[in-house]
Amino acid sequence: MPKAPKNALPVTREQNYPEWYQQVIKAADMAEASPVRGCMVIKPWGYGLWENIQKALDAKFKATGHVNAYFPLFIPMSFLEKEAEHVEGFAKECAVVTHHRLEPKPDGSGLRPAGELEEPLIVRPTSETIIGSMYAKWVQSYRDLPILINQWANVVRWEMRTRLFLRTAEFLWQEGHTAHATEAEALEETRKMLDVYADFAENWMAMPVIKGEKTADERFPGAVSTLCIEAMMQDRKALQAGTSHYLGQNFSKAQEIEFQNAEGEQEYAYTTSWGVSTRLIGGLIMTHADDDGMVLPPKLAPSQVVILPIYRSDEERAEVLDYVKSLAEELRQQRYGDEPIRVEIDDRDLRGGEKKWQWVKKGVPIRLEIGPKDIAKNAVFRGIRDTGETAGVSRDECVATIHGTLDAIQSRMFAKALAFQEQNTKTMTDLDEFKSFFKGDDDSSTVGGFVIAHFIEGCPVMEKILKDLKVTPRCVPLDFEDEPGQCLFSGEPTNKRAIFAKAY
Amino acid sequence: MPKAPKNALPVTREQNYPEWYQQVIKAADMAEASPVRGCMVIKPWGYGLWENIQKALDAKFKATGHVNAYFPLFIPMSFLEKEAEHVEGFAKECAVVTHHRLEPKPDGSGLRPAGELEEPLIVRPTSETIIGSMYAKWVQSYRDLPILINQWANVVRWEMRTRLFLRTAEFLWQEGHTAHATEAEALEETRKMLDVYADFAENWMAMPVIKGEKTADERFPGAVSTLCIEAMMQDRKALQAGTSHYLGQNFSKAQEIEFQNAEGEQEYAYTTSWGVSTRLIGGLIMTHADDDGMVLPPKLAPSQVVILPIYRSDEERAEVLDYVKSLAEELRQQRYGDEPIRVEIDDRDLRGGEKKWQWVKKGVPIRLEIGPKDIAKNAVFRGIRDTGETAGVSRDECVATIHGTLDAIQSRMFAKALAFQEQNTKTMTDLDEFKSFFKGDDDSSTVGGFVIAHFIEGCPVMEKILKDLKVTPRCVPLDFEDEPGQCLFSGEPTNKRAIFAKAY
Repeated sequence: MPKAPKNALPVTREQNYPEWYQQVIKAADMAEASPVRGCMVIKPWGYGLWENIQKALDAKFKATGHVNAYFPLFIPMSFLEKEAEHVEGFAKECAVVTHHRLEPKPDGSGLRPAGELEEPLIVRPTSETIIGSMYAKWVQSYRDLPILINQWANVVRWEMRTRLFLRTAEFLWQEGHTAHATEAEALEETRKMLDVYADFAENWMAMPVIKGEKTADERFPGAVSTLCIEAMMQDRKALQAGTSHYLGQNFSKAQEIEFQNAEGEQEYAYTTSWGVSTRLIGGLIMTHADDDGMVLPPKLAPSQVVILPIYRSDEERAEVLDYVKSLAEELRQQRYGDEPIRVEIDDRDLRGGEKKWQWVKKGVPIRLEIGPKDIAKNAVFRGIRDTGETAGVSRDECVATIHGTLDAIQSRMFAKALAFQEQNTKTMTDLDEFKSFFKGDDDSSTVGGFVIAHFIEGCPVMEKILKDLKVTPRCVPLDFEDEPGQCLFSGEPTNKRAIFAKAY
Repeated sequence: MPKAPKNALPVTREQNYPEWYQQVIKAADMAEASPVRGCMVIKPWGYGLWENIQKALDAKFKATGHVNAYFPLFIPMSFLEKEAEHVEGFAKECAVVTHHRLEPKPDGSGLRPAGELEEPLIVRPTSETIIGSMYAKWVQSYRDLPILINQWANVVRWEMRTRLFLRTAEFLWQEGHTAHATEAEALEETRKMLDVYADFAENWMAMPVIKGEKTADERFPGAVSTLCIEAMMQDRKALQAGTSHYLGQNFSKAQEIEFQNAEGEQEYAYTTSWGVSTRLIGGLIMTHADDDGMVLPPKLAPSQVVILPIYRSDEERAEVLDYVKSLAEELRQQRYGDEPIRVEIDDRDLRGGEKKWQWVKKGVPIRLEIGPKDIAKNAVFRGIRDTGETAGVSRDECVATIHGTLDAIQSRMFAKALAFQEQNTKTMTDLDEFKSFFKGDDDSSTVGGFVIAHFIEGCPVMEKILKDLKVTPRCVPLDFEDEPGQCLFSGEPTNKRAIFAKAY
């Protein structure tokens, strides 16, 4: 596609990365702020993406033996209080329901809350406590285990600084909650779901991730261990894209999820929880979008192919529409993944150039522009979003290669993101290098990256330096073997390495 | 299937209908009450049903040009206040968020709400106001119309008397919200979505419905007209199963959804909204379940076929499992509707009788019991849930006829429910007959039904009588032509007829 004289977005990644992020979302019409503080509206194009994310993940959850269920939106305050670390982690950002009706103000100037509740209810920030209280009722014997349940739901965490998709007061997510008879089985589950997330991130989102374990400070409140996938955004910051928690018996003790084991003894269950959210869409944007807008991986794109009919008269219109409809049907006969290829015809009454750029900004993988001249040659003018390549190809070739073209885009997007991540990941043994690597404007797109370095968890020298640099240990990668070395910060001997980065 | 000496449920419909309803849900393991007042937990079997309902409806919404999106859970109190009838309708049952964090009580005895909000937020009871506020931003010109958006979401209405699925404080639903440039188009949309609901109710749920228009008293708060589908439950009460509202310009004026029409004049948009909820599952239960538990229509059953392997030794187990796995695979090769037949193998370590009755209670349409003797004959022992019929059939026949068997169950269930509705619908011209028809224990399964009678809307004589009898006009059926007659209650002349019934 011949580039427009300037980019389609009013700002580039290099000029102002955070502003560019907002502009991509606006240009692709994916979401916008709502009149409710911190809550977003997910618009049809963004929600279509979420539906595809849900569908792919849901199939993976079911293939690994999970079923869906639904638990209450509200959590009694006393439930949260049962697990001390847990409530500590969420108390500062809870939406609290205190009344159950509205009544007219005595002076008639509007309404006020009435019907105060005996116990305040918290809008779920996560559901370990309410789900655990049900598991306590459902589990008596080891025969009732495991319980392998997932929930698709909205949750609320009252964030003060919000950003569309990445951090919003309300967001959509899935939360898996499982209970097991043994520690080994629960640990296996925790790891299995991390692998599901990594597989999804890499093979559906085309977003390379590092699987690792969080250090104690970064753990989920109440967890024994938190596994995560971390991805590198185009500003080289890390995005935690999914977490899988091994909760040990912490929550089962607080909620009395007890069972009689095969030996007839009472034991507390071993539980896990794991989740990903609409934040993934933020990750998708910051992994793939460019200065012309969104770039979507074919496997998740709400439309994989858009056809733009071009004509100048009603007569031409009839001819062109006939042609594009039959082409769309032919393309839909083919499957990509498990489903018919998603083809959209855009016949809105808009100037051709404007229409084309709207689809560029939305990130549709393949664009086919077709007018009478193309039809005369039985050809289509094909634009590929990720490379910007455009070419006239015969209709037959376009149809015959559609699957391969989509596959090539999907692979290329992953390869590009992986190369970027690898180029910006450094192993360091020199503290000054580390400091200068991360110094600079926090919102710049040219500062930092991932640093692999030896460290000692809880080392106070490290903590001070990281705080000053606004850097965190993202995780201890699971595939790192112990290796003798010195803590980058204190110089003390250690076998452990982590990945350090600035993060969202 | 030879009936057990007594029914599988501890109570029959005739003995105690409301208790029977609860027992079906318990026996089928579909849902249960939660520790949060009025909120239910939808368990995997109930949620699987909801997922199938969602999938079928969502496809219909998309086929009629709608897209999904997501809007905030919270509605600022001032938004609700903008439409007077609307707030009047919902003020008495609102969950009100007043604080955004928890803090320790001064005496250290736990937590209390803190961070009071400037304006209270209402947990959405329905989303006309918050969605309308966004449409006001999105719509400038007639070219921006129509907007055809649906949302799948949870909503909260603080009900005092709750009943699983039928009436819960929180429930799951979909709400379509559309905006149009003309009244005619909005009216067409209202009717189109009612037809979608009726089609779904009859052809998926096997639940016959009457399409009609609500009288003014029964309208959605703020609507110009409310269309509905009404179904008859086995206690002969009516269940409003879905509604489609024509909102005229009431909400667009309150929210300033204004556009420039093709003539260049400013005009308010014409809006509609329509919804169905998890209440449909209550309708499904009360239409089809019997004294042995749930009976599921094949099109919506989470499992359409369950296979129960029967064996007495490890050796037999290996042989039987091999056989049933290959049978399951063979059945899954076939499609019912657009999808592979849903087959489950239940190899849990449970007594055969207990296991069989669990599936009877869950309502799985077809049950195949297979042991070594059946395998020797290459046969299966097949149980059909709706008729209770059981028979040995050859494996080949079972496989070859599976689609037809499912279809026959689906049709038979609808025909049975329709016959019941027709038998219990009477046309009346005598007021005493009407009164005695509805007299009796409200929870009885042998009182009342649907009555077709002439009436005059707002007639005070009628209102008094209906109030005493706890009967309401359910709707004015859309297919009723005007017909001269006398109001059953006042004797005054009128052309209008309605359907009257007790209702959920």
